[in-house]
Amino acid sequence: MSSKANAPIGIFDSGIGGLTVVKAVMEKLPHENIIYYGDTARVPYGIKSISTVREYALQITDFLLTQQVKTILIACNTVSAAANQDVRARAGTIPVLDVVEAGTKAALRAQAASNRIGVIGTMATINSQTYEQSILKENSNKRVYSKACPMLVPLAEEGWISNEISRLTIAEYLQDFRDKSLDALILGCTHYPLFKTEIEDFLKDSGTDVIDSAVSIAAKTEALLTENELLNTSGKTGRFDCFVSDKPQRFQTLAERFLGKKLNRIEISPLL
Amino acid sequence: MSSKANAPIGIFDSGIGGLTVVKAVMEKLPHENIIYYGDTARVPYGIKSISTVREYALQITDFLLTQQVKTILIACNTVSAAANQDVRARAGTIPVLDVVEAGTKAALRAQAASNRIGVIGTMATINSQTYEQSILKENSNKRVYSKACPMLVPLAEEGWISNEISRLTIAEYLQDFRDKSLDALILGCTHYPLFKTEIEDFLKDSGTDVIDSAVSIAAKTEALLTENELLNTSGKTGRFDCFVSDKPQRFQTLAERFLGKKLNRIEISPLL
Repeated sequence: MSSKANAPIGIFDSGIGGLTVVKAVMEKLPHENIIYYGDTARVPYGIKSISTVREYALQITDFLLTQQVKTILIACNTVSAAANQDVRARAGTIPVLDVVEAGTKAALRAQAASNRIGVIGTMATINSQTYEQSILKENSNKRVYSKACPMLVPLAEEGWISNEISRLTIAEYLQDFRDKSLDALILGCTHYPLFKTEIEDFLKDSGTDVIDSAVSIAAKTEALLTENELLNTSGKTGRFDCFVSDKPQRFQTLAERFLGKKLNRIEISPLL
Repeated sequence: MSSKANAPIGIFDSGIGGLTVVKAVMEKLPHENIIYYGDTARVPYGIKSISTVREYALQITDFLLTQQVKTILIACNTVSAAANQDVRARAGTIPVLDVVEAGTKAALRAQAASNRIGVIGTMATINSQTYEQSILKENSNKRVYSKACPMLVPLAEEGWISNEISRLTIAEYLQDFRDKSLDALILGCTHYPLFKTEIEDFLKDSGTDVIDSAVSIAAKTEALLTENELLNTSGKTGRFDCFVSDKPQRFQTLAERFLGKKLNRIEISPLL
């Protein structure tokens, strides 16, 4: 195993939602060391201007590069939409994967003929039309339907995952999509995998495959590391280092809900 | 009229919610010039640590002081809770009013014997127990019931003010309060006045007075300016200057919903 294989995978998000990506990578690649950066002091990015999102994303990229990461996963849909080219340029020879690309590829593969694809995400992700462009670049015959669902993030953070309010909210946002009988629906926000079961229930008679891009990017990471002979083959359980720019109230509870397990140590490392 | 009377009133908030205070002050004091600062690049404060909220509040105070304001209104409940003493110290001889103090006084006056007072707000405001302390300092015989309602801000920003989802959310949060038949309920977040009618409807049989602290602080501002002979008596309609640290998507729509009228010019003035 090359010494570089022992280097960590860097994963970042505007806040704690990206821990759903950490969870998926841990499950797929349990021997990898992972460094996570969540910009909790400045979350949410989804309502900020594109130039602000770019500036923040580059600050985090610089932080991860100083940590000698072997690859960078952009776990934030807003950053993938607004700044993925900027992050790639800054990262140079370090490969960068992002959730938009991963979700797009998975949606196109979901069914024999995925012709009608839905995307849900934050206002910024949807307004940027990144998923739409990403899908049409792969295949211009597809039809893409997009919808911003800004209430799903606060619902996830309140822990209202499967009550009457979350079901009504999902119905309010997805009624049109159910009527259209889409082939695939991309969960284009790192918080949304928490509602995967409820969304699948709501769409159950429409034949729509629900795409969890956290799972998709974990699979792409395995392929990338294998191809570049960078898989950590030490056999030891990987180390997880969690950095945040601020430690908000209820952070521990929320982080553990997203990560799906206990989180022992969190370091506060502001970027400004 | 003294030249200082022509100086503007400075009003600030973590975002655009404080425009409900601007609206109330405009209605009460139409001849006053007003400068508003909304820290839209770093909103929401409610989930941030107290030290971060203090630092941000002082940066905005400095900005308003350079604009030669004659008084400062803290339109943000989180700042009132976490940093009102810091802002007062920095402002020196310029008087500072805050929504917590204004809401407290109004709640205590609401009924002949307001003995059981409820407070709703963001997580940070409620966890800080500022309203509780503020009320008990005035009268230690009162009983205070507090509840964080984090879903109400995103609901207001989504424009879901009086649909089934907002009604269920209000019911979920306020059921206990209705059962307790409170004398007064303080809307301890600048977004909440948008739900005043729905909250009054839900509490209609409980005899609870709903206290809108935007209206309360506008009344206190009039009293303060009158007492200090600082009322603008020019007879002209006051100028309104709106500064924000970032101009998020949908800003115009949202700002106008909170302000209750058209907003012509917004300047972007980051603090960092």
